Amino acid sequence: MKRRQSPVAKLGHVAAHTPDLDESLWFFNEVMGFQVTERDGDTAYLRGMRDWEHHTLSLTESGQTGVDHFAFRTESEEALDELEQQLKDEGEEITHVEAGEENGIGEAIRVDKFGHNYEFYWDVEKPKAPEGKRSGLLNRNYSESVGNRIAPRRIDHVHVNDPGENAFKHDEWLREAMNFQLNERYEDKNGEYWGWWYAVTPLPHDIAIHREEPGDPTQFHHVAFHLDSLQDLWTAADICSEHGIEINNRSNGPAMHAITRADCMYVKDPASQLRLELFAGPGYLNFEPDWEPIEWKEESLGGPTNHQWHGGGPTWDGIDYV
Amino acid sequence: MKRRQSPVAKLGHVAAHTPDLDESLWFFNEVMGFQVTERDGDTAYLRGMRDWEHHTLSLTESGQTGVDHFAFRTESEEALDELEQQLKDEGEEITHVEAGEENGIGEAIRVDKFGHNYEFYWDVEKPKAPEGKRSGLLNRNYSESVGNRIAPRRIDHVHVNDPGENAFKHDEWLREAMNFQLNERYEDKNGEYWGWWYAVTPLPHDIAIHREEPGDPTQFHHVAFHLDSLQDLWTAADICSEHGIEINNRSNGPAMHAITRADCMYVKDPASQLRLELFAGPGYLNFEPDWEPIEWKEESLGGPTNHQWHGGGPTWDGIDYV
Amino acid sequence: MKRRQSPVAKLGHVAAHTPDLDESLWFFNEVMGFQVTERDGDTAYLRGMRDWEHHTLSLTESGQTGVDHFAFRTESEEALDELEQQLKDEGEEITHVEAGEENGIGEAIRVDKFGHNYEFYWDVEKPKAPEGKRSGLLNRNYSESVGNRIAPRRIDHVHVNDPGENAFKHDEWLREAMNFQLNERYEDKNGEYWGWWYAVTPLPHDIAIHREEPGDPTQFHHVAFHLDSLQDLWTAADICSEHGIEINNRSNGPAMHAITRADCMYVKDPASQLRLELFAGPGYLNFEPDWEPIEWKEESLGGPTNHQWHGGGPTWDGIDYV
Amino acid sequence: MKRRQSPVAKLGHVAAHTPDLDESLWFFNEVMGFQVTERDGDTAYLRGMRDWEHHTLSLTESGQTGVDHFAFRTESEEALDELEQQLKDEGEEITHVEAGEENGIGEAIRVDKFGHNYEFYWDVEKPKAPEGKRSGLLNRNYSESVGNRIAPRRIDHVHVNDPGENAFKHDEWLREAMNFQLNERYEDKNGEYWGWWYAVTPLPHDIAIHREEPGDPTQFHHVAFHLDSLQDLWTAADICSEHGIEINNRSNGPAMHAITRADCMYVKDPASQLRLELFAGPGYLNFEPDWEPIEWKEESLGGPTNHQWHGGGPTWDGIDYV
Repeated sequence: MKRRQSPVAKLGHVAAHTPDLDESLWFFNEVMGFQVTERDGDTAYLRGMRDWEHHTLSLTESGQTGVDHFAFRTESEEALDELEQQLKDEGEEITHVEAGEENGIGEAIRVDKFGHNYEFYWDVEKPKAPEGKRSGLLNRNYSESVGNRIAPRRIDHVHVNDPGENAFKHDEWLREAMNFQLNERYEDKNGEYWGWWYAVTPLPHDIAIHREEPGDPTQFHHVAFHLDSLQDLWTAADICSEHGIEINNRSNGPAMHAITRADCMYVKDPASQLRLELFAGPGYLNFEPDWEPIEWKEESLGGPTNHQWHGGGPTWDGIDYV
Repeated sequence: MKRRQSPVAKLGHVAAHTPDLDESLWFFNEVMGFQVTERDGDTAYLRGMRDWEHHTLSLTESGQTGVDHFAFRTESEEALDELEQQLKDEGEEITHVEAGEENGIGEAIRVDKFGHNYEFYWDVEKPKAPEGKRSGLLNRNYSESVGNRIAPRRIDHVHVNDPGENAFKHDEWLREAMNFQLNERYEDKNGEYWGWWYAVTPLPHDIAIHREEPGDPTQFHHVAFHLDSLQDLWTAADICSEHGIEINNRSNGPAMHAITRADCMYVKDPASQLRLELFAGPGYLNFEPDWEPIEWKEESLGGPTNHQWHGGGPTWDGIDYV
Repeated sequence: MKRRQSPVAKLGHVAAHTPDLDESLWFFNEVMGFQVTERDGDTAYLRGMRDWEHHTLSLTESGQTGVDHFAFRTESEEALDELEQQLKDEGEEITHVEAGEENGIGEAIRVDKFGHNYEFYWDVEKPKAPEGKRSGLLNRNYSESVGNRIAPRRIDHVHVNDPGENAFKHDEWLREAMNFQLNERYEDKNGEYWGWWYAVTPLPHDIAIHREEPGDPTQFHHVAFHLDSLQDLWTAADICSEHGIEINNRSNGPAMHAITRADCMYVKDPASQLRLELFAGPGYLNFEPDWEPIEWKEESLGGPTNHQWHGGGPTWDGIDYV
Repeated sequence: MKRRQSPVAKLGHVAAHTPDLDESLWFFNEVMGFQVTERDGDTAYLRGMRDWEHHTLSLTESGQTGVDHFAFRTESEEALDELEQQLKDEGEEITHVEAGEENGIGEAIRVDKFGHNYEFYWDVEKPKAPEGKRSGLLNRNYSESVGNRIAPRRIDHVHVNDPGENAFKHDEWLREAMNFQLNERYEDKNGEYWGWWYAVTPLPHDIAIHREEPGDPTQFHHVAFHLDSLQDLWTAADICSEHGIEINNRSNGPAMHAITRADCMYVKDPASQLRLELFAGPGYLNFEPDWEPIEWKEESLGGPTNHQWHGGGPTWDGIDYV
């Protein structure tokens, strides 16, 4: 049987709130080296050095913290229409977003699935880096000469927290209704799944779910951006120490994940409290059309610190949706 | 309109001949650090540290040099059947390969397209690295403790030479009949395309075509394997110098491609004359569902040496098919 | 006034005991990638890939753990003679070591200073790497093609523990009598020095002292070897996890020191309990002829975890001298 | 016998002329990432991220190109006085430079040796990086957060050209009169030395001589600055391609030297024509008190391109002294 294709092509962006846009821009632009596509009123639109879309992160000053939504781009315009119908059939209430309500993004739909604010869109602007910042290489957006020593390259994935049973329902929906491929999952000592990692691309994951205790809030845990090299990840830790920015790994420094097998570091924007994972290293690209999910078991997972291969993972507090 | 899906999931392997299997294994196994899945009679089956399939390179001692075939895995069994029918409809003569004729590979079909020996298959064994060489990480095949200082990770792409008009026909077939995505192409001073880079995955390319002069032979130019880091690529150059193995770039050292934007080095197995490209660095992953081919023009391409961004590219001699 | 020159040119080697030489060789040779110059009876002589001397680490199977001595090479034969006289004038008892008692080392003297077994020597053999392992580069010893993915390059420094007042006396002797340059020192919350880092070369340190509580044992804390790159350090952590070897940093992964500013990871040979620090990254080279010691204060030192810049440092348990 | 100590502690700086200081600052500051200590009238004083002295490179707008002088710092004030007397005894004419004639440098002497403008000094200011650019690490000058993606770390060495017999005399003077250690030398096919590499520090070299044809001009070939990592060197090549700055290696990209065993890339400031070598990678640190010069022979040197290990070296044109 032919592999069913997901209506989703890729992760697009995360839209977050911040009580202080200038401080958030200090963090994301000056320290981390994100590029600012534009600042329009209370909202700044940012992206990594190699992102093609108008933005992969937006920050809106609104007197509060929290994630507004995260967005996936569909495979086609038709796929977006079919997905809207499918969501209606699932009994969901669809919110229509007018073209341009978010700069650079065309008509979109939003839906609350298990407490998470999903957005899906097809139309998107892909403005080139401005003259003077644009690479001479046609297959690259910003010139390497523009970046600072961190300069994330592209959006990689999002990670969310689901309380109790919601996590299992969310898992089923992503696999069965959305045709996301389950690459890895993790079973705790009691034989119950505790985490799931899904992809619509060959990345180790485009979205992951972490199961929390029943009654815990449904939250957004982090958005990850990819760096080119381990050296950049290490330098990021160095620069965070220069700025007194706390490294959010339990090891206070870069670590290597066992699950997804990538090098990682977590930091939080002090203003928006949005947790950013810098994700580097080879990880793996999964081109197998018949991949069986990796089944991790708590007792057999090698790394002693919070299930990492070496170094330590983050704490599990997330931020709420607005 | 929905994006048409290629019947092909990924590049699988290259099968080459060698006059001296021991010498070829010295090169690929001892020097380059490929893993040998098994040696069966006159054939050795090799793969990179992170390849899952039985092999991604096979070498058969047959008293000659040359490429036997290169192989793509289809998206599904059904896709393989449909592809066979499609090729018959194109008027091609199909050769059926029995399961096990190549170790680890199930039933396959082979076809001569424009002088290139294409193989397509679905069934494949994915033997785990043997005990003692297997990683404790379930999402990794061989342990990092096994590799030498080069140790290619996975097969990346193949590159072929087509004389004159054949190149244009090959291009059309890959795009129109096979639904390979054209990521980049290159136009010479006379306004004629000279090179094409295609992908069925988000890699910069899974296969590329170089147009040669009319009357030149149809040839296989190189197979590329991916390394994790620039450091490994540099060390590979160092180790080649230790062994007196000529670095096949015109710059005699690693270079950076403008097209496909990857770091690269070419070397040849002294026995089989098969050219291996070590391909490293970030390159780019192309997740865009509406990608427009990058249009390079000879006069505007920045890099002064053989159209590279820095360093030099290879010479264009390939090897024949057997 | 002219800078006084130390009689010492460089750190030479560390000689340790092990209850199981085969297991120690598994750790140092197979896992870590040290080269074995020779194994002679119960003793194995090892060195890094770029060490020129006969050995920089020796391990003797003797039914026990512990450091036998650590050794410095003098600037000249004359300097060794003058140093012997100086030590006698300090009232020390000198032990003469016959040439060849340690393979590769000529006549040497040993002295117990503050409980530490110091050796000084001038004559030393510098055997080239054996044919087949020797680099084609005349300024390199072993070929890069020989090493595994860790393969330490050269001995870097030793670190010792002194209880209470002994630490201050040891500090004074190294500075005043031995003309070691004090590069950095660290003052705790009570305004008392707690650590000192000294060099006779432009390295950040050739030897360091850590002050322990009065009554604590005088111990050897670790010997450090230098790696070429951060990538090698990170791979070392990865490989240790593959082998189930505990990473001895409190962060369970590589860290970056604030003091001496190097990237580091600690591991212990399971057999000998000798702690090895893998020391990488740029650190700094101190060419200043008028260097003033860096004065660290506990309250101002940035890194939150055990005074590191990021990641965590080791625990302070050492091993005894035999 | 005790090793004789050189009066020289380290290479200090190079002072060059430029027809266009703004353009030179574009190259050195904006593109290459040198830090500007100060700009005073027609002169800009620059240094690397980890240099402690006031400057390691100065550029004076004077309507011409050329090197004014290169400067070594002595071991002590007394050593400077003794060296002055020694040079007088050699029959040299000494030029006294008043304190402050070069910003940050105290009284100095200059002498023309074999056509090269040598300066020697002891007094020097070591201004810390300004607030906001200063590292929180006391053993580091500028914060890593300040640098661009190249950002050279420290001055490394100078390389000069001597015609015919002058080269042999210069060699003798550096070894015999100045007690510079000869680390490596190179003999051509005719059995005549063609290049010499000397150090007063454990670096592979602080100064090197290249012998040109008799009658060729005495010239300054290049000043080298050190980068932390191969990644930075590679990125430097990438950024040069972005700016259309020609990479001055014959391979048009980074290369690896056989002699001195370092990774390297040459570029020229378009305005001053001063050739800058970016020097990275481990190279080697030479701590041996009884080092015998490495004797390279043209016929045995492995690397095929201009005697490099891989990649290509620079052309041998230098610039004149002013």
